[in-house]
Amino acid sequence: MHRLSLDLGERSYPILFGRGLLRVKDVLEPYLGREGVLVVTNETVAPLYLNDVLKMLGGRKVDQLVLPDGEQYKTLDTLNLIFNTLLEKGHNRGTVLLALGGGVIGDMTGFAAACYQRGVDFIQIPTTLLAQVDSSVGGKTAVNHRLGKNMIGAFHQPKAVLIDINTLKTLPDREFKSGLAEVIKYSLIIDREFFAWLEENMQDLLARKDQALLYAVEVSCRLKAQVVSADEREGGIRAILNLGHTFGHAIETHQGYGSWLHGEAIAVGMVMAAQMSGLMGLLTSSDVGRIENLLRAAGLPVVRPENISAQQFLDLMAVDKKAQRGIIRLVLLESIGTAIVSADYDRSKLAAILELR
Amino acid sequence: MHRLSLDLGERSYPILFGRGLLRVKDVLEPYLGREGVLVVTNETVAPLYLNDVLKMLGGRKVDQLVLPDGEQYKTLDTLNLIFNTLLEKGHNRGTVLLALGGGVIGDMTGFAAACYQRGVDFIQIPTTLLAQVDSSVGGKTAVNHRLGKNMIGAFHQPKAVLIDINTLKTLPDREFKSGLAEVIKYSLIIDREFFAWLEENMQDLLARKDQALLYAVEVSCRLKAQVVSADEREGGIRAILNLGHTFGHAIETHQGYGSWLHGEAIAVGMVMAAQMSGLMGLLTSSDVGRIENLLRAAGLPVVRPENISAQQFLDLMAVDKKAQRGIIRLVLLESIGTAIVSADYDRSKLAAILELR
Repeated sequence: MHRLSLDLGERSYPILFGRGLLRVKDVLEPYLGREGVLVVTNETVAPLYLNDVLKMLGGRKVDQLVLPDGEQYKTLDTLNLIFNTLLEKGHNRGTVLLALGGGVIGDMTGFAAACYQRGVDFIQIPTTLLAQVDSSVGGKTAVNHRLGKNMIGAFHQPKAVLIDINTLKTLPDREFKSGLAEVIKYSLIIDREFFAWLEENMQDLLARKDQALLYAVEVSCRLKAQVVSADEREGGIRAILNLGHTFGHAIETHQGYGSWLHGEAIAVGMVMAAQMSGLMGLLTSSDVGRIENLLRAAGLPVVRPENISAQQFLDLMAVDKKAQRGIIRLVLLESIGTAIVSADYDRSKLAAILELR
Repeated sequence: MHRLSLDLGERSYPILFGRGLLRVKDVLEPYLGREGVLVVTNETVAPLYLNDVLKMLGGRKVDQLVLPDGEQYKTLDTLNLIFNTLLEKGHNRGTVLLALGGGVIGDMTGFAAACYQRGVDFIQIPTTLLAQVDSSVGGKTAVNHRLGKNMIGAFHQPKAVLIDINTLKTLPDREFKSGLAEVIKYSLIIDREFFAWLEENMQDLLARKDQALLYAVEVSCRLKAQVVSADEREGGIRAILNLGHTFGHAIETHQGYGSWLHGEAIAVGMVMAAQMSGLMGLLTSSDVGRIENLLRAAGLPVVRPENISAQQFLDLMAVDKKAQRGIIRLVLLESIGTAIVSADYDRSKLAAILELR
């Protein structure tokens, strides 16, 4: 088992990595407290891993809630199902919520933990690549609103994150590739060598070889932990983690949650951000090409859907949480491995990018 | 204008008191930021004070949302109306929410501010006595769940609290008296001299004389600020603010939100806590009598509703947020002016208190 620490003072917590960790009894014991546990999962993940987790928690008062699977259920209404279960089963402030699943389960369970009785502890057991390298680490929790993604939420750090890369073996191909988009993102914003490693090792990753998976997941978590510990509440540097997300969220919202996977939308968003960076003279066209090539090699889309007009893009991007006084702030690349956040760009160049199909 | 500071490090904020403050332009200017404002109020308060507040904010982008009035609307569904307005009107992270109304408006608006885009600023303008002396100060925000009061919420401190005691002049008598219950509570848990002052000045308070109102509101806020700054997240001492609330919440939940006012329920709850303290030999029977007399002089009920059985009380009290491993913790009085929190009491004595009608 590897162990990495996310350093946030009194809110610091460990990220535990390994193969087969879900079958290790007592690994979560230090983080469980003395009261009840509610495991929240979904109907896809439950048949695969719920029994392992229940065994791991053996002997405690454990309740479970199995939610429907899908981004379209990441709503206040589904959140209320978690509150219903907590109250019906008599859970109190000492309770620990355990999120077993992908980003949707983690974000909702974390937000429920942030709000239940004004805050209880929770633990993340991410079972998708996207959740392992991104959403389970850093304490952002939320549900969607029909007018915008992740618009209702909280910063609430977990007590621990437990990553068993064996769970990636059962992941559908399209979801696995969606997760690779975030892995590639870390390399783009902060680690040029990791980008080169990804270029070299994409075939091993796609074949889900253990060593490649462990390395990519651990490096991604380490890079994310670095950024988050420097800026927990996204006052500054943390915004670079949103490379491609302003474009990507617009695509997700426009197409309807669930039709494009998150990683697919941000893959296109990263291409758009790279093209914009190129148009502004920040990034060489050969680097723009390398970025497109790596995303394509990962099996990700690199061309935006045709049915969004430039104006629709702008409208959807203006509700982005990073926007200030109606001005859309973009995460751009100065080079592969170096990102900046800027509101100081030529509007006509952005318009040109949004017209490209 | 008087000014008191709630000292919480970087989350410190001022509580501003006075007569006619709603008509003072620019008093809120330092707390508004540079983006939009959403004023959230209800249909009772809007005709009385919304215009004053809009004038006070003159010149800015201000939206307004008028909600139905009543504890029964303090729900996730109503909360979503606030999110709808914020998103439809394009409010971003720099927006400030302004709660104009009683505790329900303040608790919901504060919780909406805690969650919208993972947290925006808010300002409290409490217009009821209960909200001025209690709910607007201290950063507790929440909505109710059908299985328990304030079960879903957050700790989120306002940027400022603006108290205009003129708003108390329009308050219905029953609501005014409900607020007095919390004023009396502060004297009971922490300030014996204030209790004596209340015994002396109850008639002036009930007549809503300016000097008496200003004094009672300011002392109450000062006492609450003391407790909150010592223990922001209710890890310890802050729990004494719940004197009477474990009993009182059980009454409110059992009777249905809105049929008993909060202060009425906790007035009875404080009598029950005083009786329990008496039965345990902590409080003299003459002090129990003084407490009952002062509450009665304030026009508050001192006898619990007949239709709750002892078992129903216990069940409802067990979901209290202060309960630990199913054990109900009680706030008790060692004397008038000194409270303790205890799980170490004789269950049969509690049963006897719950049987009393």
